[in-house]
Amino acid sequence: MIYFDNSATTKPYKEVVDEVVDCLTNSFGNPSSAHRLGIDAEKKLNTARERVAKLLNAEPYEIYFTSGGTEANNTVLKGLLKKGDHVITSSIEHKSVKEALKQLEEEGVEVTYLKVDRDGIVDLKELENSIKDNTRLVTIMYVNNEIGSIQPVEDIVRIVRNKSKKARIHFDAVQAFGKIKIDVKKLDVDFLSLSAHKIHGPKGVGALFVRKDLKLKSLLTGGGQEKDLRSGTENVPGISGFGVAAYIAYNHIEENMKKVKDIKRYFIERLSEIQDVRINSPQDDKHIDNILSVSFLGVRGEVLLHALEDYEIYVSTGSACSAKRVGQNYVLPAIGLNQREVEGTIRFSFSHMNELEEVDKTIDVLKSLLKILRRVKK
Amino acid sequence: MIYFDNSATTKPYKEVVDEVVDCLTNSFGNPSSAHRLGIDAEKKLNTARERVAKLLNAEPYEIYFTSGGTEANNTVLKGLLKKGDHVITSSIEHKSVKEALKQLEEEGVEVTYLKVDRDGIVDLKELENSIKDNTRLVTIMYVNNEIGSIQPVEDIVRIVRNKSKKARIHFDAVQAFGKIKIDVKKLDVDFLSLSAHKIHGPKGVGALFVRKDLKLKSLLTGGGQEKDLRSGTENVPGISGFGVAAYIAYNHIEENMKKVKDIKRYFIERLSEIQDVRINSPQDDKHIDNILSVSFLGVRGEVLLHALEDYEIYVSTGSACSAKRVGQNYVLPAIGLNQREVEGTIRFSFSHMNELEEVDKTIDVLKSLLKILRRVKK
Ligand SMILES: Cc1ncc(COP(=O)(O)O)c(C=O)c1O
Ligand SMILES: Cc1ncc(COP(=O)(O)O)c(C=O)c1O
Repeated sequence: MIYFDNSATTKPYKEVVDEVVDCLTNSFGNPSSAHRLGIDAEKKLNTARERVAKLLNAEPYEIYFTSGGTEANNTVLKGLLKKGDHVITSSIEHKSVKEALKQLEEEGVEVTYLKVDRDGIVDLKELENSIKDNTRLVTIMYVNNEIGSIQPVEDIVRIVRNKSKKARIHFDAVQAFGKIKIDVKKLDVDFLSLSAHKIHGPKGVGALFVRKDLKLKSLLTGGGQEKDLRSGTENVPGISGFGVAAYIAYNHIEENMKKVKDIKRYFIERLSEIQDVRINSPQDDKHIDNILSVSFLGVRGEVLLHALEDYEIYVSTGSACSAKRVGQNYVLPAIGLNQREVEGTIRFSFSHMNELEEVDKTIDVLKSLLKILRRVKK
Repeated sequence: MIYFDNSATTKPYKEVVDEVVDCLTNSFGNPSSAHRLGIDAEKKLNTARERVAKLLNAEPYEIYFTSGGTEANNTVLKGLLKKGDHVITSSIEHKSVKEALKQLEEEGVEVTYLKVDRDGIVDLKELENSIKDNTRLVTIMYVNNEIGSIQPVEDIVRIVRNKSKKARIHFDAVQAFGKIKIDVKKLDVDFLSLSAHKIHGPKGVGALFVRKDLKLKSLLTGGGQEKDLRSGTENVPGISGFGVAAYIAYNHIEENMKKVKDIKRYFIERLSEIQDVRINSPQDDKHIDNILSVSFLGVRGEVLLHALEDYEIYVSTGSACSAKRVGQNYVLPAIGLNQREVEGTIRFSFSHMNELEEVDKTIDVLKSLLKILRRVKK
């Protein structure tokens, strides 16, 4: 099996699985219980919180665990924005931002969508010009999940801070976290969304970084867990597994990204052997190394995906979320791809668990598949 | 170790742990992915959905997975109620209903709190008289988590249906599910909240039953998972583990509850050997058999809890959620307990995993502890 779909989700580390089992079997108490079993479980949460915080250079008390990146995004947007507020975002956000904003728009929140250039990067002048008196939030994804574009987050913060005291800054860092070194203190950001299952942690767990002294209205209200921001009995096994994944990421981020860089470089090099190919995420400073989006002209992405599947090579067309809703892709048109290019797009997404040999195998299979599929199409 | 805190949380079944491990290790794909790994993961969700549905006699498509009971409750309340709506609830709800309603009240939703009698049961006449033209929801917990009172759910449905076409009915069934046989078709209820970790499933997973044809605004908006009601990459290991727990509960509900009934009966019998004791949840039709709330006069609950802990006997004072917020209990005063009785209250909560011998051990320890602790208090 060749798993090149690591931006959709990743395989949990063995160490993560072991930690989950330990929590389910031994530390099964309710962290809110006053007795030893409760305190055991609470310690698990504390350790995880420290580990996730460390990867961001945040304080542990600035980390709030959620059920995933989607909840983290919804918590910021719905917890902050009220009727009459203005929010600035990009036109290539993940659906958990895009759709939540659509809902808020219907309730009277004003939204500005920044366009992106052919690299998938927002226009900083347009950002600056869009900030108004009632701008309450700027929410932009750190790394795009389909084309891997890396936004100029430092510039964004600088521009927003210069023009507004009132506007808060949120980055959806789900695809950046654990891959790019993030220092929330240097970055001076207000909110960051994270998700465990993109860094070899469990699904159904994420976190929201909330800069100290900032408050949000709770989305899940109740028993007062997570300092009243996020009630509900804590998912101790998931959270503790997330902590382990964050810990491993912290200790290996450089070597892992070097390995992934080599894989992308080699993949692009070998793609030159195939004709009529457009690389939508070149290897440069503007694109993350674990995502390689390629348009194979003259073939439909879904067809190629399933043909690759027969060789146990797993990839994605767009993102996992839109994979089942063909024809609804909005990211690729936003960077200027035409219909034919959009149709033929495959996303290969890597992890350090991949090997160079897997690239060779994939290129070989692609060559023979494309020969057949492109002929059929004509 | 004697674990008498099963209403706070339960120890996951071995079979649940195995299923979680299988999902983390083998079925780690994203259910939204179009390839085999995605389809594998989606199958896991389908199986779990069927299993949870079966325990309620619901249709699988009426089950929506959430991150727990708190999210299920919040989804109903915040997804349905708008400014100007009226909602009826009880005065002894779990905080995930109580606090969510408080938030909604601040936003212009009108709330009526029904009082309860000494058994913790709502007054049906008061319910009937409270239903108004703008009553949009009646939300009442099926079984109370502190005193185990079982509400007359059939009567509640009958009364509401008779008086209103517009009012929807929601039962927080977190403490009932898997213990009381629920048939949503016979019961004719609109929404039910469930949580996995109360039935030996994993923490951080729950479900909302939504009667077919009914719609709610989504709380977590995004990729459109769970038929657009609850976006976010699904917690496949947790959900699949929940399915296993529901499957086991379905197959053993009678024998399990018989065992628990015997434990409660024996516990109450042996409590007669201790003086100055008030039983807040007698063994009758109005109280569930797995919860035994006892006020030990002349001693503080927290002190007794920690003294029992030294003998590796784990209990709770109120609910787990309020365990760390002493003095805020609202359930016990609502059934007429005075301050002294509230202070001395311990909740023993059983599971079929407990044994009669554990009652003997606990009674012995209680006797000797109370002798000392009550003397100190004087
Ligand atoms: C950029 C981005 N944001 C948010 C999410 C949502 O996170 P989760 O899957 O944990 O809900 C994802 C992944 O699905 C993502 O790629
Ligand atoms: C009656 C009741 N409702 C809701 C909840 C909340 O469920 P969860 O712990 O899954 O958030 C609980 C338990 O904590 C409960 O006892």
